[in-house]
Amino acid sequence: MDKPLKYAVFGAGSWATAIVKMLCENLDEVGWYMRSVYTKEHLLKEKHNPNYLSSVEFHLEQLKISNNINEIADYADILIFVIPSAFIHSELEKLTTNIENKTIVSAVKGIIPETGLLVGEHFHDAYKIPFDNIAVIAGPCHAEEVALERLSYLTISCADAKKAQHIADALSSRYIKTKISDDIIGTEYAVMLKNIYAIAAGIAHGLGYGDNFQSVLMSNAIREMKRFIKKMHKMKRNINNSAYLGDLLVTGYSVFSRNRMFGNMIGKGYTVKSAQMEMNMVAEGYYATKSAFLLNEKNIKKTRLPIINAVHAILYENKNPKKVFKKLTDKLD
Amino acid sequence: MDKPLKYAVFGAGSWATAIVKMLCENLDEVGWYMRSVYTKEHLLKEKHNPNYLSSVEFHLEQLKISNNINEIADYADILIFVIPSAFIHSELEKLTTNIENKTIVSAVKGIIPETGLLVGEHFHDAYKIPFDNIAVIAGPCHAEEVALERLSYLTISCADAKKAQHIADALSSRYIKTKISDDIIGTEYAVMLKNIYAIAAGIAHGLGYGDNFQSVLMSNAIREMKRFIKKMHKMKRNINNSAYLGDLLVTGYSVFSRNRMFGNMIGKGYTVKSAQMEMNMVAEGYYATKSAFLLNEKNIKKTRLPIINAVHAILYENKNPKKVFKKLTDKLD
Repeated sequence: MDKPLKYAVFGAGSWATAIVKMLCENLDEVGWYMRSVYTKEHLLKEKHNPNYLSSVEFHLEQLKISNNINEIADYADILIFVIPSAFIHSELEKLTTNIENKTIVSAVKGIIPETGLLVGEHFHDAYKIPFDNIAVIAGPCHAEEVALERLSYLTISCADAKKAQHIADALSSRYIKTKISDDIIGTEYAVMLKNIYAIAAGIAHGLGYGDNFQSVLMSNAIREMKRFIKKMHKMKRNINNSAYLGDLLVTGYSVFSRNRMFGNMIGKGYTVKSAQMEMNMVAEGYYATKSAFLLNEKNIKKTRLPIINAVHAILYENKNPKKVFKKLTDKLD
Repeated sequence: MDKPLKYAVFGAGSWATAIVKMLCENLDEVGWYMRSVYTKEHLLKEKHNPNYLSSVEFHLEQLKISNNINEIADYADILIFVIPSAFIHSELEKLTTNIENKTIVSAVKGIIPETGLLVGEHFHDAYKIPFDNIAVIAGPCHAEEVALERLSYLTISCADAKKAQHIADALSSRYIKTKISDDIIGTEYAVMLKNIYAIAAGIAHGLGYGDNFQSVLMSNAIREMKRFIKKMHKMKRNINNSAYLGDLLVTGYSVFSRNRMFGNMIGKGYTVKSAQMEMNMVAEGYYATKSAFLLNEKNIKKTRLPIINAVHAILYENKNPKKVFKKLTDKLD
């Protein structure tokens, strides 16, 4: 890696904005693709994202902003995708430039609903990107705390350790510590599953369960996550590392998590539809629940997934949350 | 176990009061020793503990209350000790009745400072109680949520599974689920160590670290706890079970935890002494920190305990919390 590699971020949500901020601590220039013309123009005029982390002021000379996905994909060597999983498929349909030799980094928190594939798998299948050139960024990391420059830890997973370290170095700073891992499949699943458990935590809270139950739920959730990931991709991993347990905790305990908030409304009696309308968005965990449930169904040797099954029953089988959780409490320990 | 065994609780703090409440759901009579004459008289007159969980109303015909520890020890077959570890030594000095054939249950959250022994070990050594007759009650369980009858889970550990189940049955009710375990040493250490990590969480919060860091701290804490307990007593255990991880989380995330509150004051700049005076009590984790540190020091093969060492440096070596935590952040991942 002699001449400096160019980085670009695709997406303009809070997590995308946080990643651009981290990269700007180290790089002279960062490519930034966003769909919205309004967001781009606001950024160029006011130097901050109008919708997310608007307290973060950027230096425009460091940013190469465009509404054209191909322009930014052409520009960069390392492409970081931070688009909600529900939109990534339609966004990528615009991509015509050849990205076969690029490094693809997923900071998407879910599975692509149209294909049921992890983002890494999707790029491998659809664009022939070798797995050595696919990486994943995992937390635990609320974007809002990056904006405040509060110390946070990231895990960068890639089969190629040198590449993982390169990306880790580009993201590290005074307030960001990084470590690398070779468990790209495991971290991608963890990032997705934690949102389901955050919905479960929200439902429990909405139903009136307290802190004692929440801790039992999280203790069961990490064991369930371990079983699920092991079934999908068996390798030696410590499920209590920050990328798995830490990320579960920061999401499951956060009152700001959109997934937890969504679950809370469901627990309080909102229908799925009315909760989604009220929030004016669809929580990532909503899709993740279906994907995780189906992945397990497809397996010949199914794993015991009492929490995911309970959330699925509530969100997709129109079951009564109170009754489903009453039954769930007997399956936890 | 033909004729019904009699239970008694020793102590009148919030956890003791919660345990008496749980037992009263199942038993006709519960023995209850408390040191304070005032507490006893208030209870007999007003039917609730004046100092803790005072919303819980007892039926006096179910309680056999006494200020005489020997009277209650004589009365019961199963003796549940729920006295802060700092006072248990002096309380037990009053005990003259023979308890050799009784079952001893520890719900004490710490090590006996005078001896450095776990409560179970102390009873074994000082009263010749066989380990088969020693049990431990572990959470995760805030006493306050028991008062509100919010669903909580307890783990009862005893080498004798039949005895563990008997105690579990006496505690189980509509809002209390129980499981049994044979890891009495591991759960006793977990109960003690979690308070140190709660102090660490409090210090971090007081110093201005955020939720991202808190989740990394907890993820490192459970790995450190696993190493520590394994060194003390090697056996097959899942550290992510509720009695270990769940109990760590309910304490480490609780803003009501006295240990976390104590740490928070230290992080905000109080001295150890002024924080203790302000709180009008000594947090269990304060003693636990010293005990855990010394136990590790005594071991020929020491375990890596970055969090416990950091808390020890702050509480006992007069080191600057900000500097100690800055160094600690480099040791976590």
